[in-house]
Amino acid sequence: MKGYMGKILRVDLTKGRAEAEKLDENLAKKFIGGSGLATKILYDETGPETDPLGPENRLIFMTGPFAATPVITSGRHHMVSKSPLTGAYTESDTGGTWGPFLKRAGFDGIVVTGKASKPVYLWVSEGKAEIRDATRFWGVDTYDLDEAIRKDTHPEAVVASIGPAGEKGVRYASIMNDGKEARAAGRGGTGAVMGSKNLKAIAVHGKMQVEMADAEGLRASLKEISPMVAKNTEGMRKNGTAGGLATFEALGSLPLQNWKFQGRWEQGAAKIAGPAMTEKILTGNYFCERCVIGCGRRVKVDKGPFAPVEGAGPEYESVAMLGSLCLVDDIEAIAKANEICNRYGMDTISAGAAIAFAMEAFEKGIITKKDTGELELLWGRGDVMVKMAEKIGKREGLGQLLGEGVRIAAEKLGKNAVEFSIHVKGQEMPAHDPRCFNAGAVGYATINRGACHLGFSHVFERVLSMPEIGVDQPLPRLEVKGKGELAAKTQNIMGLFDSLKVCKFSMFGGLKMTPILAWYNMVTGNSVTMDEFLKTGERIFNLKRMYNVRCGISRKDDVLPSRFLTLKHEGEGLNPNLPPLGELLYDYYKFRGWNEEGIPAPEKLKELGL
Amino acid sequence: MKGYMGKILRVDLTKGRAEAEKLDENLAKKFIGGSGLATKILYDETGPETDPLGPENRLIFMTGPFAATPVITSGRHHMVSKSPLTGAYTESDTGGTWGPFLKRAGFDGIVVTGKASKPVYLWVSEGKAEIRDATRFWGVDTYDLDEAIRKDTHPEAVVASIGPAGEKGVRYASIMNDGKEARAAGRGGTGAVMGSKNLKAIAVHGKMQVEMADAEGLRASLKEISPMVAKNTEGMRKNGTAGGLATFEALGSLPLQNWKFQGRWEQGAAKIAGPAMTEKILTGNYFCERCVIGCGRRVKVDKGPFAPVEGAGPEYESVAMLGSLCLVDDIEAIAKANEICNRYGMDTISAGAAIAFAMEAFEKGIITKKDTGELELLWGRGDVMVKMAEKIGKREGLGQLLGEGVRIAAEKLGKNAVEFSIHVKGQEMPAHDPRCFNAGAVGYATINRGACHLGFSHVFERVLSMPEIGVDQPLPRLEVKGKGELAAKTQNIMGLFDSLKVCKFSMFGGLKMTPILAWYNMVTGNSVTMDEFLKTGERIFNLKRMYNVRCGISRKDDVLPSRFLTLKHEGEGLNPNLPPLGELLYDYYKFRGWNEEGIPAPEKLKELGL
Repeated sequence: MKGYMGKILRVDLTKGRAEAEKLDENLAKKFIGGSGLATKILYDETGPETDPLGPENRLIFMTGPFAATPVITSGRHHMVSKSPLTGAYTESDTGGTWGPFLKRAGFDGIVVTGKASKPVYLWVSEGKAEIRDATRFWGVDTYDLDEAIRKDTHPEAVVASIGPAGEKGVRYASIMNDGKEARAAGRGGTGAVMGSKNLKAIAVHGKMQVEMADAEGLRASLKEISPMVAKNTEGMRKNGTAGGLATFEALGSLPLQNWKFQGRWEQGAAKIAGPAMTEKILTGNYFCERCVIGCGRRVKVDKGPFAPVEGAGPEYESVAMLGSLCLVDDIEAIAKANEICNRYGMDTISAGAAIAFAMEAFEKGIITKKDTGELELLWGRGDVMVKMAEKIGKREGLGQLLGEGVRIAAEKLGKNAVEFSIHVKGQEMPAHDPRCFNAGAVGYATINRGACHLGFSHVFERVLSMPEIGVDQPLPRLEVKGKGELAAKTQNIMGLFDSLKVCKFSMFGGLKMTPILAWYNMVTGNSVTMDEFLKTGERIFNLKRMYNVRCGISRKDDVLPSRFLTLKHEGEGLNPNLPPLGELLYDYYKFRGWNEEGIPAPEKLKELGL
Repeated sequence: MKGYMGKILRVDLTKGRAEAEKLDENLAKKFIGGSGLATKILYDETGPETDPLGPENRLIFMTGPFAATPVITSGRHHMVSKSPLTGAYTESDTGGTWGPFLKRAGFDGIVVTGKASKPVYLWVSEGKAEIRDATRFWGVDTYDLDEAIRKDTHPEAVVASIGPAGEKGVRYASIMNDGKEARAAGRGGTGAVMGSKNLKAIAVHGKMQVEMADAEGLRASLKEISPMVAKNTEGMRKNGTAGGLATFEALGSLPLQNWKFQGRWEQGAAKIAGPAMTEKILTGNYFCERCVIGCGRRVKVDKGPFAPVEGAGPEYESVAMLGSLCLVDDIEAIAKANEICNRYGMDTISAGAAIAFAMEAFEKGIITKKDTGELELLWGRGDVMVKMAEKIGKREGLGQLLGEGVRIAAEKLGKNAVEFSIHVKGQEMPAHDPRCFNAGAVGYATINRGACHLGFSHVFERVLSMPEIGVDQPLPRLEVKGKGELAAKTQNIMGLFDSLKVCKFSMFGGLKMTPILAWYNMVTGNSVTMDEFLKTGERIFNLKRMYNVRCGISRKDDVLPSRFLTLKHEGEGLNPNLPPLGELLYDYYKFRGWNEEGIPAPEKLKELGL
């Protein structure tokens, strides 16, 4: 089968060994690559007894068949592991250029296990892999490290690494790549897993080429579709992913004040939205490999209390979580906190959520100035938000607690704090209010890694259509009927995106499943039908669920924080809603062929070949 | 103020002292008696740090102003404590004759604290109280004990006592009274609290009389209303509270197979409903003091595998929980298990729930024959259900675990069992399906002692009206609008019933709040308005909530088991529903003047004088 290098790199850090293993083509057919293939490996090699931060956990980096091919927006790779944040399945993906260069170095993926006795990094180049000492790099932030490792290896090497947050076990530590053109695998704490293994970085480089079954056909198809995607994403290129932030505010979907704000926040939103960023701090944009969208922000702040900031700017999630969620309306403060998160290597979503959680705890007197080191942890204080981000990265003072994530932090602070710890399955909520999107709500409740916007259900309730799954136009947001089904179907196709490794933003450019399937067949030489293709997405989702079921997850965990179920966000022009989660889950389970406890029925597993 | 004896008996078992204390009339005005007054004492004297089974917990027995007066259905008293089942507020009430005789013995209530160094019982008679050795009574069941204690004190003494279940700390052990004309304070484990204090029984007797402000007016009013109540409750007199069981089955409200059954169970229901009991095993009925209803069942089984049974028969909750919930359709098996629960002194609702929970765990392979002592714990097996009830009463084998209640049992069995442990706040669900009643659903989720049918909201969705709270006719069951308000209002007036100590079944006889208030004013000599009266009910409910808030309870605990939110009960002629709990809670909190976390707002507490 074309499209793959045919090799997986197996790294055992305890033994200090890195060896190539043949890729199992049958598995690659059944699970494609990226998320799907890595999940299969995790499922087979770990389980309920695995300590996420123990040497026996696996940290799996995986590319898809499109990486290093001309397929647009294919500069992505995927990480899968057992999460220290949720204690269950996690995955995280990122863009940039690391994935394609891993393939050019000769490997489709890397499976890391064990724990090195001292800090090491991995250098993968031209079919070979070397475990190198990284003692001198421990404690270095991801931007500085990128330069240092490139000096130590190859000037064009691409580096994926952790920062101090991952070293110190922040449960939502990220794995960053591509230096100051930063791309983050933010969610679920894969950076903490990497840190627990004493693995500081993986640098990749190579010039090998991936074979394609029908390169010509692929090029012809891309020639037709690329301009459309590029044209339809002009707004994103100009104002980044935060371009629509004011629209979200008007919809009531922008997260505000740890999700308890009442009323409108128009002026604040205008000050931090994409156009404001463009006007105030933007110096340019950047692209992942084969990208035609260019949402990456290059920013600079060289004056004022938050200077210096230079390099990657915040995308929508970061702006919202570090900004509006804390009622911070200063884009420079947000850019600074974003850079801190990037350099220390931690998820901006969970970090912003942890800070907002702490602000509410401070407001309620559950934590005091004694806990904050005399910081006035008040809503809207950008300077304080920035300081807290740094404290978390350093795990200093209150940052020690907040680095545990809001679920554990709230449990430690006592029952009164549990109420406003906003997460699903232990993972903090991203920046789209589930009260505004009924499919989004049930999607958030059921996605395997916990609260997650990349199931994309909510997008199909507002702007996107996908005829291949029977969604000819977006479904009205606040309808209930059909939303369980919509959430399940979009989760399934997002599993395909995550396994092929295509950027989901390409859908905003008008990309549909039909050309994606055509490209898959052209690259691999397979002749998969749309039905089989969609079934593969369903198979991948169910495999993740089964991993979680083994870890004790069931219907009782398919919940939303009660704030979303019992507190309406009211305000002028808003249309306040509370998602009827029970009804939605009933429909969702029924459509999925799961039993009333949320466990996939034996017949369903058989149908999917699991 | 008339209607009270003016004295509370304070018993400290550690010190071996029993002393009279003057009743605080201001508190009696503010909290009436029964539930309200006892709650105030619990609130002031215990809190989050109190161990429910430690000597510092209080066990409070309280009568209301109507006990020992001619008010119909006033033969009731109330118990309040911190619950070993929920770790929070609990209360339980019972009928019979014990309450009136406590007053005739000279006391409005008894507050028990401390722990005796060996088993004791309390003998309260003619204004005096004596702590007596009960070593020889330890281990005796409540029926036999009743006789023995009467021999030891006065042939007409009335005995409230625990059985072996209370001695052994079954977390839902009851306090039973009136011997074989058994009445049970079943819920919340007050019997375990009594057992933890080494207090086996309290016997009361006396001939004192309670003064009334307007005895003549009261008698005239009662003369008018009693016949109406008697006439309207003929069905209950004939077939007991289980008379309507078949109707509940047809509605989908009868609990079946640990609440997961699909379809209809008509034949089973017919075999265990009131008319079948009347036909097969009834020998007569009995009445509480001043009762005109006579729902008490006197039954006899003298042949077959379940003989002998003689004495009190099962009421609706017991038939449903020990019967249909386990798919047991044999009324003799149910009567036997009911007698076991009575004799051992444990709640039939929680016991039935624990057995059904175990049957589901057995079905799922979570417990096996090794755990059950080779018992085939199968749905519908009456013999096995009876054996399990006995094992719980003795805390023998699997009964040890099941005596902890389903919440703790499920936690010990592991995550897969949590899914089907059906409780709210740790207290097992009673026998009215919340999927059938939207106000009932939010009522169940919010009642202070955990899942409880005696908030009565569901009854106002089917048969009852109460113009005094604006409910001129029952509200349609599956409507959502107005149901948060209905639940709150009915909870408030049930607080009045529980504090005055009037039987709630009198409402089925047509009794309304207006005559009840008139009686209250006639007995006490007060001139309370209906507004003040209803406000008192609200005050009492909020005080209980505040006790729970101190114990860490908030919105996160105002939930329903997910089975009720995500599994529809479908069947011919049923109208399957899932209560939209989020929306209902939103309305409920708003109506209550509680914040979004379910905490009463300061203004509300001030308004209520709390």
